[in-house]
Formats: sequence, C-alpha cells, structure tokens
Amino acid sequence: MEKFDIHILGCGSALPTIRHQATSQVVNIREKLFMIDCGEGAQVQLRRSRLRFNRLNHIFISHLHGDHCFGLMGLISTFGMLERTADLHIHANSDLQQFLLPQIDFFCKDMTYNVVFHPINPGERSVIYDDRSVSVETIPLRHRIPTCGFLFREKPTPNHIRRDMIDFYQIPTYMINRIKNGEDYTLEDGTIVPNERLTTPSAPPRSYAYCSDTIYLPRIAEQIKGVDLLFHEATFASSETVRARQTFHTTATQAAQIARDAQVKRLVIGHFSARYEDETVLYEEASAVFPNTVLAKENLMLSL
Amino acid sequence: MEKFDIHILGCGSALPTIRHQATSQVVNIREKLFMIDCGEGAQVQLRRSRLRFNRLNHIFISHLHGDHCFGLMGLISTFGMLERTADLHIHANSDLQQFLLPQIDFFCKDMTYNVVFHPINPGERSVIYDDRSVSVETIPLRHRIPTCGFLFREKPTPNHIRRDMIDFYQIPTYMINRIKNGEDYTLEDGTIVPNERLTTPSAPPRSYAYCSDTIYLPRIAEQIKGVDLLFHEATFASSETVRARQTFHTTATQAAQIARDAQVKRLVIGHFSARYEDETVLYEEASAVFPNTVLAKENLMLSL
Repeated sequence: MEKFDIHILGCGSALPTIRHQATSQVVNIREKLFMIDCGEGAQVQLRRSRLRFNRLNHIFISHLHGDHCFGLMGLISTFGMLERTADLHIHANSDLQQFLLPQIDFFCKDMTYNVVFHPINPGERSVIYDDRSVSVETIPLRHRIPTCGFLFREKPTPNHIRRDMIDFYQIPTYMINRIKNGEDYTLEDGTIVPNERLTTPSAPPRSYAYCSDTIYLPRIAEQIKGVDLLFHEATFASSETVRARQTFHTTATQAAQIARDAQVKRLVIGHFSARYEDETVLYEEASAVFPNTVLAKENLMLSL
Repeated sequence: MEKFDIHILGCGSALPTIRHQATSQVVNIREKLFMIDCGEGAQVQLRRSRLRFNRLNHIFISHLHGDHCFGLMGLISTFGMLERTADLHIHANSDLQQFLLPQIDFFCKDMTYNVVFHPINPGERSVIYDDRSVSVETIPLRHRIPTCGFLFREKPTPNHIRRDMIDFYQIPTYMINRIKNGEDYTLEDGTIVPNERLTTPSAPPRSYAYCSDTIYLPRIAEQIKGVDLLFHEATFASSETVRARQTFHTTATQAAQIARDAQVKRLVIGHFSARYEDETVLYEEASAVFPNTVLAKENLMLSL
C-alpha cells in the first residue's frame, strides 16, 4: 500500500518544556510531504525525522499563535541555504505575510526559490489543496483567534487488475488502465466480461484530520466522520475543564468524545499543557471514552 | 568565589543539525544572567540549563544572521506568558527592531513587560553595559554583515579584611568598608597601620571574550589580551582555509593563534560547520597551537 504516514515533530503547547517541542507535524502521502504547523525547532525535528526536505512543498498553518509558526523563518532560511529551487507554498491566515515577507527580504539574501502565500479563511470549510492523490480541506475551529484544522483525504486509487484474467482473455495492454478504472471488457464475439470479474477492489481511500487548537466543538464530528486517524488537541485533563473552556482548549475526555461521535478509526491526542510531567492521566481519560487512543510524542510515526 | 559561569546553549552554525543547536550562550555573573545571541531553540536550551528565566535582563546579539537571532521571538513570547514584569534589554544592530516590534505587537497580546532596544554600533569598540559588578564592551569583528563580539569584564572586588587585625586594633565597624577599599587605619596615637597589613588581596577580576562570527582577525588579540576565557568561532578545519576566508569565518588553527597571541588562559571553540560529524579534527588542530583548548558543546558550563 502506498504511504500515508503522520510524523509528529512536536506536540507540546505554548510554554516550552524539555519534554516536548512546539507543534509541528508532517504528513507523507506517497512521498509528497505536507507540513502542518511549524513551531520553533520544527526544522531540527524535520531533520531528525530523516524525511527529505525537498519533498516538502506545502505548509499549512492552523493559526497565528507563536507555538504554531515561530519555526517558519528558520525553515525558510535553511531551505535557502540548501539552494532549494521549487516554490514553497504557505497556507495561512493572511496576517502572516506581513511578518514573514520583510524578514525573508532581510535575512535570506540571494534566495534561490519563492515563498508563495495562500491566504486561508479559517471560518469556512473549503478545499485549499487538491492534486491527483490528495485533497486538503479546512475544518473551522474555535480558538481565541481565527483557527482551522485540516482534513487530508486520499483520492481513490484504481482497482487492481487480475493477472490471471489478463492471460485468460488475452487482454491487450491498451485496455489495462481502462479496466483498472472501471470499464468492462468486450470479447471478439461480443460477450461482455464485467469489470468485477477482471479486478479486485483497491484499498478504500484513507483520511487524516488535524484539529488543534480548539475549544470542545462537537459539530466537527460530522465533517471528520469515519477518518482513519484523528489528531485532536487535549491540552488539559478533565480536572481543568473550566480552564480549558476559558482558554479555548479541549480536555482529553472531550477529545475522545469527538473521536467516538465521529466514529474515527484511531485517535492521537497532543498539544499537552506544560503542567503534565507525564501524560498518563490524559491517556487514561481519553481511552476510557475511546479505547483506540494513542498519545502523541516527538518522532512518533503513525501509518494509515 | 562568586559565580562567573559560561553556559553553552548552542554551538552549531547556520545549517541546523541533530547534534548542535543554533548559537546561544548565557553568562552568569553573580546570579545576573546575560544572554549572548539567541538562535532558534535557545529558550528550550535555557530551560534545560535550569537557570532562572527572571534573572535574565540583557541579551546581546552579535549580528543579524538567523542562526544568531531567530530564537528571540519565542523567548520574548514565553517571558510574556510567564508574566515577567522587568524590562528586557536587547542590545543589537538597530535593524532588529523593525522585525521584532511588529511581531511583539501581534503575537504578544497583553504583554506584562517591556522590551527595550539598545542599538549598538558593531564597528566601534565601546562599553555598552556597565553595573557595579561587570562591564560589557563590544569587540569589532569582520563578517559578511556588521558584527561584533563582546568582552565581559568583572569589576575588581574589595580586598578581604583580616579578622585578626580588626580584633587586634579594635577597629570600629564604620571603618571596615573603607579599609576593604584601600584606606589605611590611623590609631589614636597617630600611628598609621598600612592597608597591606590589614587586608589580603581579593581575587583578580575575571574576564570573558566572545568572538563570533568573524574572519581570522589578528588585531583583536590586543583588545582581549589575557582574558580568562575566550570563545572563538572555529567553523572550519584548516583544510577549508580558503572557504573560511570566502565566507568570513575562522579555522580552528586560526582561532588558536588568536588565543596564543592574546595570551588568554583558556580557549573554547564553537560555531561548528554542519559538515563535521565529530569535531575531533578541530580540537586537534586548535590544541596543537594552543593546548588549553576545549570544544564547545550543548549544555557545557565553564566556570572562571
């Protein structure tokens, strides 16, 4: 099966700790890399992941809090030193440009590539990226400032053709792709061999939803229904439910309720408050509601 | 003896590696902390050092390359979240303000403290900080952009008074500090007891010089003559002498020549190029010229 991996580069929250890096992830879909958020230190974590820098062309920023974007300048600058040539696309609230552009001009002399900004409207659900293997859709969230999550949906792949049927019916090469894409095959005597007899179905398309930072927002369950993996912030434990609401964050229990209501296949929680020396309490709370839960941690890779 | 410690937070160069952090150091003089440079990740390294954030009031930036200042926004933002109240003073090329001020306005809402910028002229040798225990002087360097190093000089401490002499001459309390500071003591019969008889000399004042980034610049030896510790960049080995000159950096051998010519007590080299998987070659080169050399590394503390 082709790659659809999530690499956690950092899963801490606003206050830095020794245990967690600021927020950043990379989604690897068929060797195309997509970064989600880019907190301070993301470029070193990216290096640690051994993913190839030049496979990364799109960065999606959920919101303009420092712990989600202060790593951008370092990354942009490093790409310049590595003499990158491909455009780097940054999808973010339009305010970001006003800080990054003057810094790029000043710090990155002789830039070998362009940084292209794509403003996103976090308040509305829309497809902001689309190619032949994947689409990315915004998930409107509610935080202290405009914020959205991102839903990655793999495109369906063609069915697998059955080698024994090709031989049996002596199917010519030019027909192979057409049959993979659903056509029946007509024999010389006019007999129609139905597609189901010639192919086996490919794996169903996979999907990944990233929801951070946000207050507990039950309505997102409908948009992320049935995804293979949900990353949801779980900044606090239930004992801090009031504080979670005040700061527009989610508790581990609430994150699990979203996973359960959305009938996702697996939940990974992260964006842990610095107050937790270990996240066992968050894991226990979430898995009590939604058993198939894992804790995010730096350098963790999850394959779909 | 009172503290005069150098904490290496990061000693890599422009390209990030897994082995080294971007440049940053903290000088701890009698529990006052001074940061030199603030590359990406400095705040996490500061946390790792267990130094107290609220003891840090002054940051000195050698030059405006990203690997020496991209950590500032994260640090400033974190200090705000920790509800710092004391002013934070940043001594740097005046261009820095134009990037930081708009970001502080945008990212640090409800700031509880002020960031005060002090422009420095890196081309001229001048005292840019002075209190009763230490002074900081710029060291003009030559790099691709305006750059200076920093020379920390401890102020002389008063002599130690001899307890047995106080008792013997029944010296009154009000005279103690005057004698510590060099006065003689006159007995009732007019006899003068010379200061040397009443005191023992305090330790000589200590000094630390930080020189990075720079081309090999023999003239700095005169300014940093006899310092207790010299940090000098040694980006390359001698095999890269041409490249060092082209990029306005120094080789390990050249750094050691500076240390030898300046008759410093100890040399620590850093700002290692990403090309060195281990720095043995740099250590061997430098220590061949100047034996009392150490390699910088993250979380290393050097006490003077």
